[in-house]
Amino acid sequence: MKLTSDIRGVMPIAPTPFLEDGAIDTASIDKLTDFYLACGATGITVLGQLGEAPKLEHAESVDIATRMIRRASNLPVVVGVSAPGFAAMRALTRDVMDAGAAGVMIAPPNTLRTDEQIVGYYKQAAEAIGADVPFVLQDYPLTFTVQMTPAVVRRIVQEVPSCVMLKHEDWPGLEKISTLRGWEREGTMRHISILCGNGGLFLDYEMERGADGANTGYAFPDMLCDVVRLSASGQREEAHDLFDAHLPLLRYEQQPGVGLAVRKYIMMRRGLLSSAAQRKPAAVLTAAARTEVDHLLQRLARHDRRAAFVN
Amino acid sequence: MKLTSDIRGVMPIAPTPFLEDGAIDTASIDKLTDFYLACGATGITVLGQLGEAPKLEHAESVDIATRMIRRASNLPVVVGVSAPGFAAMRALTRDVMDAGAAGVMIAPPNTLRTDEQIVGYYKQAAEAIGADVPFVLQDYPLTFTVQMTPAVVRRIVQEVPSCVMLKHEDWPGLEKISTLRGWEREGTMRHISILCGNGGLFLDYEMERGADGANTGYAFPDMLCDVVRLSASGQREEAHDLFDAHLPLLRYEQQPGVGLAVRKYIMMRRGLLSSAAQRKPAAVLTAAARTEVDHLLQRLARHDRRAAFVN
Amino acid sequence: MKLTSDIRGVMPIAPTPFLEDGAIDTASIDKLTDFYLACGATGITVLGQLGEAPKLEHAESVDIATRMIRRASNLPVVVGVSAPGFAAMRALTRDVMDAGAAGVMIAPPNTLRTDEQIVGYYKQAAEAIGADVPFVLQDYPLTFTVQMTPAVVRRIVQEVPSCVMLKHEDWPGLEKISTLRGWEREGTMRHISILCGNGGLFLDYEMERGADGANTGYAFPDMLCDVVRLSASGQREEAHDLFDAHLPLLRYEQQPGVGLAVRKYIMMRRGLLSSAAQRKPAAVLTAAARTEVDHLLQRLARHDRRAAFVN
Amino acid sequence: MKLTSDIRGVMPIAPTPFLEDGAIDTASIDKLTDFYLACGATGITVLGQLGEAPKLEHAESVDIATRMIRRASNLPVVVGVSAPGFAAMRALTRDVMDAGAAGVMIAPPNTLRTDEQIVGYYKQAAEAIGADVPFVLQDYPLTFTVQMTPAVVRRIVQEVPSCVMLKHEDWPGLEKISTLRGWEREGTMRHISILCGNGGLFLDYEMERGADGANTGYAFPDMLCDVVRLSASGQREEAHDLFDAHLPLLRYEQQPGVGLAVRKYIMMRRGLLSSAAQRKPAAVLTAAARTEVDHLLQRLARHDRRAAFVN
Repeated sequence: MKLTSDIRGVMPIAPTPFLEDGAIDTASIDKLTDFYLACGATGITVLGQLGEAPKLEHAESVDIATRMIRRASNLPVVVGVSAPGFAAMRALTRDVMDAGAAGVMIAPPNTLRTDEQIVGYYKQAAEAIGADVPFVLQDYPLTFTVQMTPAVVRRIVQEVPSCVMLKHEDWPGLEKISTLRGWEREGTMRHISILCGNGGLFLDYEMERGADGANTGYAFPDMLCDVVRLSASGQREEAHDLFDAHLPLLRYEQQPGVGLAVRKYIMMRRGLLSSAAQRKPAAVLTAAARTEVDHLLQRLARHDRRAAFVN
Repeated sequence: MKLTSDIRGVMPIAPTPFLEDGAIDTASIDKLTDFYLACGATGITVLGQLGEAPKLEHAESVDIATRMIRRASNLPVVVGVSAPGFAAMRALTRDVMDAGAAGVMIAPPNTLRTDEQIVGYYKQAAEAIGADVPFVLQDYPLTFTVQMTPAVVRRIVQEVPSCVMLKHEDWPGLEKISTLRGWEREGTMRHISILCGNGGLFLDYEMERGADGANTGYAFPDMLCDVVRLSASGQREEAHDLFDAHLPLLRYEQQPGVGLAVRKYIMMRRGLLSSAAQRKPAAVLTAAARTEVDHLLQRLARHDRRAAFVN
Repeated sequence: MKLTSDIRGVMPIAPTPFLEDGAIDTASIDKLTDFYLACGATGITVLGQLGEAPKLEHAESVDIATRMIRRASNLPVVVGVSAPGFAAMRALTRDVMDAGAAGVMIAPPNTLRTDEQIVGYYKQAAEAIGADVPFVLQDYPLTFTVQMTPAVVRRIVQEVPSCVMLKHEDWPGLEKISTLRGWEREGTMRHISILCGNGGLFLDYEMERGADGANTGYAFPDMLCDVVRLSASGQREEAHDLFDAHLPLLRYEQQPGVGLAVRKYIMMRRGLLSSAAQRKPAAVLTAAARTEVDHLLQRLARHDRRAAFVN
Repeated sequence: MKLTSDIRGVMPIAPTPFLEDGAIDTASIDKLTDFYLACGATGITVLGQLGEAPKLEHAESVDIATRMIRRASNLPVVVGVSAPGFAAMRALTRDVMDAGAAGVMIAPPNTLRTDEQIVGYYKQAAEAIGADVPFVLQDYPLTFTVQMTPAVVRRIVQEVPSCVMLKHEDWPGLEKISTLRGWEREGTMRHISILCGNGGLFLDYEMERGADGANTGYAFPDMLCDVVRLSASGQREEAHDLFDAHLPLLRYEQQPGVGLAVRKYIMMRRGLLSSAAQRKPAAVLTAAARTEVDHLLQRLARHDRRAAFVN
C-alpha cells in the first residue's frame, strides 16, 4: 500500500514513546497505534519533526517504524527520513519501505535559500530514494527557515512525480492553499493531497480553503478527526465550536521547543503513553507549566469530556 | 513625564492611520488616541514594529508622535526609534523627546548574534540617545531573529540604567518572565516593567507569571485592558473566559506579514480608522481573508458585544 | 550626467573621512576626490557599505555627497541610499540627485529570501525613487545574506529598466559573470555594466570572465585602475603580477568588520586621510594588527613603490 | 594513541576519494595517507566538512576511517562525527574509536544562537560520546553560522575537559587567537591546541599570533607543513614568501561550494587521487574554472616546483 495524492483525513504525527531510562517503550507504541486506529485516523506519520528522530540510531528508527507499520495494518504509515545527507536518507528509506511503509516525508535542510536550490534539492532527494517511493513535501519555514513560494511548490509537484502530498505548515498559509488549489482547477498543477501541520493552529480555516485534512501531533488527534469530519460534511459552525474550545490548549502546545514536553505530558495523562520522558537533550516542563496545562485541561473539559480524565 | 519601571496596564501599539492616497490621516490619529484614553490604556506606543515607521520620512514621524503626545496629555507616549544606525535613532529620539515623549523603544538589529554583541549594542544605543532618555527593550526573536537569554536581559538591565521596561515577545516566553521575576525577588536584578507583546497570544498566562500588562496592537485593546484588570484583581476564570473568546480572532490577527491588514480592517470596521489603507509596500487582505475575519467577528460577538458592530 | 550601462573602469568606494572628534573631515573628502581623479577612476561611489552611512544624519549624508559631486565634476558619483524603508531611501535619493548625483546604489534588506521577494523589492524600490533615477544593484550575499541567482538578476534587469549596473560581490561569483554575459550574447538579457566588489579578491579572473571593472574600496585604488587597464588591454600576466603582489594585503583588508579600520589606517598612512578615525561604534585596530599591516606594506613595497611611503 | 592538547604541526583535512562511479577509491586513500606521512603531517582529519561525510552510509564512514587509521599507524587520526542528533554521533564515535581513532571533531548545528545554547550543546555532545573521547571544537561561523566569542570557547574549554583542540576558522580570527593565548598566559584558561582551518587563508599571521599549526585541506599540504615549520623556527620572511606564492591559488580554492572540486582536481593532477569525482550532489568545475586553475598552477610553478607537474 503506497501513499497516493488521494489521501485525506487525519494522519497524526506520532511521538516516539520512551521509558524513563531512555529505552524505547514498545507497549506505548502499540497503545498509540491502536488509539489512532480507533479515533478515525486515515494514516500515521512516524519519526517526524517531533518524533525525536535525531536521538535514534538507524536500527532503532527501523524497529519503531516497523512495529507501527505492522500494528496499523490497515493504515498507511509515512516515515520521516530527513537527513543532512542523501546516504542516510536513502538507507532509512530503503529499510522502512522494505518493512511496508507507505511513503516517506522529507524536510528541507535549513541551508536552502533560492528557488533553484529548493527545487534542485527535492529532485536530487527523489532520485536518491528512488522514483518509486512516494514522498511528502514538508513546508515548515518557521522551523526549517526555508521559504517555498507557491510557485516553488508547483515546480516540485510538476517536476517530481513521486511527490504526492504537501505537509502544509507555512505561516501565514491560508492564501497558499487557495493559490495551489486554484492552479489545480486551472489545470496548471497536478493534484496533490494537502494535509496541514503547524500544530493545527489554523486547521479550521485551512479546511475551508481546500485542505484535505490534518497531519500534526496535537495531543487530541480525536478532536482533529472530528473537526476534519465536521468541516468536510458541511457542519461549519460545529467544526469551529469544537476547534475553538481546544484552541487555548492547542496554542499552548504549539510553542517551539517546549511543545513536545506538553504533548507527551497530556498523552501520558490521557493514558496513551506510559511516560512523558524524552531522550536527552530534552526541554523540561516546569512545575508552573504543568499547572498551566492542567488548568487548560480543566477548562477544556467543560466543552469536551475527553479532557476530563482523572489521574 | 518620563516612563519609569513602574508602568503597568496596557500600552496599545498604535497603527499609523493613512488615507487611501497614502496621506497621514490625522483625524483618525485623534480618534484612536481618544479611544485608547477611554478604554483604560495606561500609555501608548507609536511607530512600533506595526506602525509602518520605515515608510515615514523623519518629519512625518515627528509630526505623528507629536500629535499623539499632545492629544494623550495624561498618558505616557513611547516612540519606536529603531534604526539601522545611531544617527537616525538619535535624531528621532531628540525630536520626539523635545515634543514630550515619555521614552523610546529600541529593537535590536537582526545581525546581532552573541550575548556580547547584544549587550554591547544596547550600551551603545543608550549612550547615543542620551542616558536621560528612558527606553524600552524590545525582545522579539520571531521578527528580529535576535535571541536574548534571560541572562542577557539581566545584563542590559544591570548595566544600562535607562532601560526601564521590557517589551516581552519571546516565544515561548512564560519561563523567561518567571526567571526574571525570580531574579528580582532574589535581589540579583533591578525591577523593570514587563509588558507583553507577541500579539497578546499568551497574555492570559503571562499575567499569572508576573507580567505587568500588555504592549501590543490587537484590534480590541479594550479587551486587553479588561483581561489585565481581571487578572490583576484575581478574577482568574473571568480573565480566561474573555481571553479565550477572543483567541480565535487574536490568533488570526497574529499572522506575520498579513496581520497589520487584518488589524486595520477590524479597526476600520470598529470606526477607529477611516480607512484600512497602508502605505506601499503593503500586504493585501484578500476577499477570502476578509470573509474569514467577518466570520470570526460574528462568532466573537456571541461572547463580546463589542464585536457586534454593524456596517 | 546620469549613470548608464556603459560605465567601465574603476569606481572606488569612498570611505567617509572623520576627524578624531567625529566631525566630518571635509578637507580629506577633497583630497580623496582629487586622488581618485588623478589615478584614473571613472567614477566614485559614496555612502556605500563601508561609508559608515548609518552613522550619518540625513543632512550630513547630503552634504558629503554634494561636496564630492562638485569636486569630481567630470566623474559620475553614485550614492548609496539603502535604507530599511522606502521613505528614507526616496528622501536621500531626491536630495542627492538634485545635487547632481549620477545614480544611486541599493542593497537588499537582509530579510529577503525567495526569488519573488527579491524581484518584488527592486521593482518597488525603483518605483519609490522614480523611474528616471539609474540605480546599481548590489549583490553581496556574504554581508546581506540575500542570495540572488543569475536568473533573479536577469529578471530585475529585464523588468526594471532603471537598473543599469551590477555591483557584483557574490562569492563564489566567477560563473555568475559568465552566465550573465552568456545571456547577453544570446540576446535574452539586456546589457548592464558589471563592476566587481567583494574587496577585489577575485578581480584578476573577474575581468577575464567579462566584468567591466571594479567598484570596491581597497586602499590602493590606483592598483585597481592599473589591473583593470592591463587586463582590458590584453597584458594578462602583467595584470596578474601586480594583482598577486597586492593580494596578501588585499586579503587582509577584506576581513569582515575590521576591514574598514585597516583601510582607513592605510589611507591615512598614504596621506589620503588626515585621520583613520571612525564614528562610533567602530571596530578597533589593535597594535598587533597595525604591526601586521605595516609588515604587509613593507613586503608589498618590494613590488610596488606606492606602498613605500614614509611616516 | 589519543589526541592531546599538545598536538602541533599540520593535520591535513583528507578528502574522501571516489571513483567515477561513486565507489570509494581505496587505493587513493592509501596513496593520500602515504603522502601525508611523507610530507611531514603530524596527524590527519577525515570525514570533515569537505570529506563528503553526509554522502556516506555509516558503514562506509567507518571503513574509510579504519583504513586510514591503519595505514597512518604513526599518526593520530581525528574523525569528523558531526551529526544532527547525538545518536548518530555516538554510534560513529564508538565505531571509529574502537578502530583506533585518536579523537573526533564536532561542528555545531547551525541552529545554535546564544552563548548558553553553544556551551550547552558541547557539554551534551561530550557526555553523549563519552568523557574519555578527546574532541576537536570546530569554530567555523562562515559555514555553520554559529558565532562563538572567545569567552564561549573558554567556557567550553573550562567546563568540558575532553575538549583538547580548537579548529580555528573564524573570520576575522587573528584577535581571537591572541585573546585565547592571553587567557592561557594569565592562567584563566587551560591550554588547548589551536590548529587553523578556513582554507589556510590567514595561516601566515595566525602562526605569529600563537597558533600551533594548520588543520585544513589545501591541495598542497606540503606547503602548509613548510610554512608552519619555517614560522615555528623563526624564518619569518621565508614563511611569508612561500605562503604568498601560494595565496592566489589558495584563495581560489577557498571558494564556498566549488572549493572541493578545485581541491580534488589539483590533487588528481598531482597524482594523489585517481579521480576528481565527487558523489552526488556535487558542484561541477566548469571548463573555464579548470583553465583558471591550470593558469594559477603555472604561475605558482615559477615559485614552487611542486606545482610544475606534467599531465
